[in-house]
Amino acid sequence: MSNLSISHRGQLMPPSPIRKLVPYAEAAKKRGIKVYHLNIGQPDIETPKAVLDAVRHSEFKILEYSHSAGNESYRRKLVDYYKSVGITVDHNQIIITTGGSEAILFGFMACLDPGDEVIIPEPFYANYNGFAVAAGVNVVPITSYIETGFALPPIADVEKAITSKTKAIVICNPNNPTGYLYSEQELQTLKEIILKHDLYLFSDEAYREFCYEGRHFSAMQLEGVNDNVVMMDTISKRYSCCGGRIGALVTRNKALLDAVMKFAQARLSPPGFGQIAGEAALDLPPDYFDDTKAEYKSRRDLIVKRLNKMPNVVCPNPGGAFYAIAKLPIDDADKFCQWLLEDFSYQNKTVMLAPATGFYGTAGLGKQEVRLAYVLNLDAINAAMDCLEKALEVYPGRKV
Amino acid sequence: MSNLSISHRGQLMPPSPIRKLVPYAEAAKKRGIKVYHLNIGQPDIETPKAVLDAVRHSEFKILEYSHSAGNESYRRKLVDYYKSVGITVDHNQIIITTGGSEAILFGFMACLDPGDEVIIPEPFYANYNGFAVAAGVNVVPITSYIETGFALPPIADVEKAITSKTKAIVICNPNNPTGYLYSEQELQTLKEIILKHDLYLFSDEAYREFCYEGRHFSAMQLEGVNDNVVMMDTISKRYSCCGGRIGALVTRNKALLDAVMKFAQARLSPPGFGQIAGEAALDLPPDYFDDTKAEYKSRRDLIVKRLNKMPNVVCPNPGGAFYAIAKLPIDDADKFCQWLLEDFSYQNKTVMLAPATGFYGTAGLGKQEVRLAYVLNLDAINAAMDCLEKALEVYPGRKV
Repeated sequence: MSNLSISHRGQLMPPSPIRKLVPYAEAAKKRGIKVYHLNIGQPDIETPKAVLDAVRHSEFKILEYSHSAGNESYRRKLVDYYKSVGITVDHNQIIITTGGSEAILFGFMACLDPGDEVIIPEPFYANYNGFAVAAGVNVVPITSYIETGFALPPIADVEKAITSKTKAIVICNPNNPTGYLYSEQELQTLKEIILKHDLYLFSDEAYREFCYEGRHFSAMQLEGVNDNVVMMDTISKRYSCCGGRIGALVTRNKALLDAVMKFAQARLSPPGFGQIAGEAALDLPPDYFDDTKAEYKSRRDLIVKRLNKMPNVVCPNPGGAFYAIAKLPIDDADKFCQWLLEDFSYQNKTVMLAPATGFYGTAGLGKQEVRLAYVLNLDAINAAMDCLEKALEVYPGRKV
Repeated sequence: MSNLSISHRGQLMPPSPIRKLVPYAEAAKKRGIKVYHLNIGQPDIETPKAVLDAVRHSEFKILEYSHSAGNESYRRKLVDYYKSVGITVDHNQIIITTGGSEAILFGFMACLDPGDEVIIPEPFYANYNGFAVAAGVNVVPITSYIETGFALPPIADVEKAITSKTKAIVICNPNNPTGYLYSEQELQTLKEIILKHDLYLFSDEAYREFCYEGRHFSAMQLEGVNDNVVMMDTISKRYSCCGGRIGALVTRNKALLDAVMKFAQARLSPPGFGQIAGEAALDLPPDYFDDTKAEYKSRRDLIVKRLNKMPNVVCPNPGGAFYAIAKLPIDDADKFCQWLLEDFSYQNKTVMLAPATGFYGTAGLGKQEVRLAYVLNLDAINAAMDCLEKALEVYPGRKV
């Protein structure tokens, strides 16, 4: 074999399950078909003007490296934000990262070695797979089910998955792709497990501010597990700042902060302009999330209602984030989503969905499920649901 | 051992050798001492106004994810830039990264597996160590010497270092930390080696535009090694845009591009504002580098002259970048650099240097050497050299 081959991990690295249908969408558009994108979590909500203006009115003369942990002024202000949502940390317990993505990568890299195992309730955010492959870590999925609205699997299932190599549990709360919002009781259950088995708990809280049923309870609010809990955070969805590439790794584990800082120093600093945006976002009026949340909630209500009215379609009501998973009367979600783009249109329109298979770690699961991101306005959602309804009537692979 | 321990790689990860003296510098400043920072490659050159204005005048309403490979408009314009410096590539052979740092990480991740070896002429950019640890790769240093101005080590030394695990050679051209500019002849020598032994050649060309003696010859200009050569690039130093965090991985190896794209997709996209800055920088007038280069050249001439005038100090004339390594009549560079900050001042001023030990992979080398980044203006360099000259007269660990 040539030395110029791709590394083993480069071969194992999964391609994005969300983006693999893109060529079919592009071809549909070239044929003049309007495609409603419910396949990807890029919000259509405008970035708050004050956030963009902070960047546009910035006055420095040299675009310098920042501190490797991020600007101290930003981290100090984040302390107040976290306090406002019930999380007590100091600014030295926050490391600003290049998006939530880098926070996940740093957490995996600093805590886990090749061959270690992380347990993740499936379906899960597909890129956890990518970061696990990059770190040489094995993902052990435990299945959550659409029948229970994708709640945390029973504690017995979690404990059955624990081996001598298990070092961490990863949750995303509220969840991408299911929209499930973990209850305080579920978090307390996880606390018992991580204490009993001496595990890290990685909690991805990218969608914290988007909860429609009940209050968000953060893993950082669990008591007595300061060394176990690592929170991954991001401004991407919260302030519609996906392109800013600003996130954070937050933990009270001092040894871990020191280790993560070494990874942070190697890549020098997080993006400068994005940090200005992130810091400015903390000055938004307290009612900023009210409007955005109300908008997402009405979209959720609409899409869930429309889906559940379709024959043999099941869609649990998601408590947070802006995703829903629906079970459809189809043979194969990958085929169906491709067919929607290649062979179907209704009034010259179609809809792009994400097959749920890409979110499961267990092969064969999710074949009748799709993820819908409700990141379009109500009219667009209605039009997209019209398409889906018609499509399910005529899809050749229909299967109840 | 607790599961909550830091990973093996997290423990192996080297702390930044450049930043470890920072607390001593801060203490000196608190004592009222002026510290000249020649320790770090943060240029004092202003970011071109047109580049910052492009960001400040941008008019989009949503800060969206970009293409994972970076904006197509930016990649297409980069094709013209590369053409202007003699490098022929198309826009699909360019993947925009979060700084040159991410280009190095992606290259290591996609080409190399844990246990593989990369050969790097030492002294080398210390963060190569960090990315190697992150990827589980072993760095095999081959020593270049101050006596030959840090030229490429003899071909026999390179070949002696090659084992069955060697998969790549890394060069930085012009070099950080030595300032050495590789000749076309040396590149041709490397080509013979990588062809003979079937190796990747990673070429970090961050400082391409800063050459003071002769023309830069890029690894991408080598013929017949399209699958071997991977170039890492960045706008950080070129346009004084360190905080933009925009770089690029460039290669004609199609399989490698496909593999790197999977890593790029996992982290979603490079920073949005930084890409606007990077694209705008390509519209700077052709004489932009003339002024910057003339400024750096006069600084280099001054610092090299001042250093070589000091008794028992040797500093080869660097052909590019904005670093020089000097050999000093001292017992231990780490002790000396700390002493400069802790125990020395001249006219209430002192100078901060980087001990060269952190740039060597071989333990014990570089103990009499320091790296100086000439990123300050001529007056500041003169004042810093006054400090160094006086310091060498009184340093208790003086040793010729």
